[in-house]
Amino acid sequence: MDGGNMIIQEIRVTPLAFRDPPLLNAAGVHEPWALRTIIEVITDDGLSGLGETYGDLDHLTKMRECAPALIGVDVHHTNEIYTRISAIVGDVVSDLHGLTGTSTKEKSIDRVFSPFEVALLDIRGKAAGVPVCDLLGGRVREAVPYSAYLFYKWDSHPGGTPDRFGAALDPAGLVEQAALFIKEYGFRSIKLKGGVLPPDDEIAAIRALHEAFPGVPLRLDPNTAWTPETSIRVAHELQGALQYLEDPCPEISGMADVSRNIATKLATNMCVVTPEHLPPAIASDAIQVLLLDHHYWGGLTRSAQVAALCGTFGLDLSMHSNSHLGISLAAMTHLAAATPNLTYACDTHTPWQDGQDVVAPGALRFVDGAVPVPDGPGLGVELDREALATMHEQYLTCGLTSRDDTGYMRRFDPEFVVKRGHW
Amino acid sequence: MDGGNMIIQEIRVTPLAFRDPPLLNAAGVHEPWALRTIIEVITDDGLSGLGETYGDLDHLTKMRECAPALIGVDVHHTNEIYTRISAIVGDVVSDLHGLTGTSTKEKSIDRVFSPFEVALLDIRGKAAGVPVCDLLGGRVREAVPYSAYLFYKWDSHPGGTPDRFGAALDPAGLVEQAALFIKEYGFRSIKLKGGVLPPDDEIAAIRALHEAFPGVPLRLDPNTAWTPETSIRVAHELQGALQYLEDPCPEISGMADVSRNIATKLATNMCVVTPEHLPPAIASDAIQVLLLDHHYWGGLTRSAQVAALCGTFGLDLSMHSNSHLGISLAAMTHLAAATPNLTYACDTHTPWQDGQDVVAPGALRFVDGAVPVPDGPGLGVELDREALATMHEQYLTCGLTSRDDTGYMRRFDPEFVVKRGHW
Ligand SMILES: [Mg+2]
Ligand SMILES: [Mg+2]
Repeated sequence: MDGGNMIIQEIRVTPLAFRDPPLLNAAGVHEPWALRTIIEVITDDGLSGLGETYGDLDHLTKMRECAPALIGVDVHHTNEIYTRISAIVGDVVSDLHGLTGTSTKEKSIDRVFSPFEVALLDIRGKAAGVPVCDLLGGRVREAVPYSAYLFYKWDSHPGGTPDRFGAALDPAGLVEQAALFIKEYGFRSIKLKGGVLPPDDEIAAIRALHEAFPGVPLRLDPNTAWTPETSIRVAHELQGALQYLEDPCPEISGMADVSRNIATKLATNMCVVTPEHLPPAIASDAIQVLLLDHHYWGGLTRSAQVAALCGTFGLDLSMHSNSHLGISLAAMTHLAAATPNLTYACDTHTPWQDGQDVVAPGALRFVDGAVPVPDGPGLGVELDREALATMHEQYLTCGLTSRDDTGYMRRFDPEFVVKRGHW
Repeated sequence: MDGGNMIIQEIRVTPLAFRDPPLLNAAGVHEPWALRTIIEVITDDGLSGLGETYGDLDHLTKMRECAPALIGVDVHHTNEIYTRISAIVGDVVSDLHGLTGTSTKEKSIDRVFSPFEVALLDIRGKAAGVPVCDLLGGRVREAVPYSAYLFYKWDSHPGGTPDRFGAALDPAGLVEQAALFIKEYGFRSIKLKGGVLPPDDEIAAIRALHEAFPGVPLRLDPNTAWTPETSIRVAHELQGALQYLEDPCPEISGMADVSRNIATKLATNMCVVTPEHLPPAIASDAIQVLLLDHHYWGGLTRSAQVAALCGTFGLDLSMHSNSHLGISLAAMTHLAAATPNLTYACDTHTPWQDGQDVVAPGALRFVDGAVPVPDGPGLGVELDREALATMHEQYLTCGLTSRDDTGYMRRFDPEFVVKRGHW
């Protein structure tokens, strides 16, 4: 018997920026820099743990306010930590960029709580000499499958040099992108970020992918760009071609309308994003697949609880991703590895970070489109301090403090409107 | 960093019996011996953990079949252990004594899994040097309130010598019983096990308790002895006197009928006893309070997940008890201490065991009706090996192998029928 109490002695909150390609979506286009925040928690006996979350300024500010309030708490006492964070975040609903759905008071708290909870699990895993998935019931799969996450994109940021991924503004471009990702990562399912072109163009894209990659499960995510009527029409036209259709239209009520009229499963990371959304979505059978995301479902343990709830109510599980680095990929992998009913391939933006990372190389890799659970204790990843310093410097100089796909798009297309129930 | 893998090397399964007073209920009367099974799990590095569960032979047999299949598994790998137990328990639905509600396949598995999971948490707590509640998020209360659990009872088993609790067959007897328990334990809420006398007699009992202990929350649990019509009538007559009414009538549909017609909250440990019952109960608003019981909800972690689900759906939480010893009391206390939304006092049969226990004295005590979370690592209780040997000997000689309140009652009243939807 060792240890006992492990007290939080220091917390470092470091925002950083990494290069991001011009990926198109219903809200606009990714800016040249993606922002993230790294949390390092250090205990009185010198163990440290890592968490990763959004870099948007409102959120960063909340984390900076909360971090000092957690000093002195035992790393096991997540109930106490949640209470302290709730008291600080209070009733303020901070609205992050719109692609992760509605913001609520509880979601705002869960989002701040999450990276601290992940860091504490990292510490507890290191202390026990076991991977984080072992603190969540142990792995049910040795490697976690991810999907190829395709985006319509420009060949470069306006005025910049073309990136190695090339343009993708039509079916042929997307098929080429998919082929590249499958060649490099071995992905066995494909997700297309839609809501960019009119629905018939995206139907054509899915058909082209279906033809080019027969048997490979396909998903389409228009980020609520459509009306319920359009959603129903597209689902009928793509009948049999989609594994699931993700957030075709806004709101639980809209999704319920669509769901009643189609055979394809509906998935969401936009209309059900916090516990209070679950009862109405379940009561109206609005969704059949929930995309978990520990970044806003309050960390890994709470996400596991939501997963259990989904099992109880017969909802399938997949996993959502925003632009992220290796700490998040490790956390997602541990959670998915230990969640028996998470049976779909998870989403990840990893290919788009194109080798940039804040964790030391070697711990995370893709084999046949899946990430083997890292071997080491805790999350199994280590900070690359040089990369952290570089990326923090990039944060300080890049000129961005919050994600704004719409504002960026409007610099090139002043008439651009966010596609919400648009088509 | 220490430890890492901790492998299960040995599991001991020990049935035991302890003396039980003649407590009356809708199914009959408690026999002179209550049966339990103690699980000891021992790891390759010599740590051991404890679990406690039912002693009924069918259940005991399943545990004896499962125990060898868990040797060699890491103590963290509860997903793997659940899978192995599922494979062995298979599709057999074992029907335990009826007072814990319907049996289902999943419940049969959860019930076998539970004591192993508790023992593994005990081991993990000892290895980390922290109490089990710290593996569940940490305590939100320093002590867990329990209720005085009153029973109608005879003064002795037929042919036996009177016990120190005396008879309780009318309101005055119950008031006296409550006074004794409150004096000895400091309880601040009272539960009456009903379903024994005609409803008007039990109404009179609640009124007498209400008068004798003004302001003390009261609960009545007739174990489905009534029809929905009677349930509604009693709820109206006792309007304002009950904190909640527990399982007045059978089935989710019956409870939903009652719920629609009364203001008093309905609680259950009989119609919602396994995950598959939650969706229909929630959809029909059949209950407002779920009585958790880790013995059949699959251990502490799964119970915590059910607790989270209840929070999400606005169900209150209390805790159910069958006759038990100190290992279960410790496990219940850790779970309740770490469950923020478990705000009602929990049930316990502890007073009825009248000092008999299988754990060494000192770790568990009642202060003002509440059990302070044990201080030690893990569950914080140690086996009293002498008591274990004595109680196991009692098991071997007592002549009972399964609980049968009804059969025992019929020895004295051959016409006795189980009171299910009876009045
Ligand atoms: Mg999405
Ligand atoms: Mg009951």
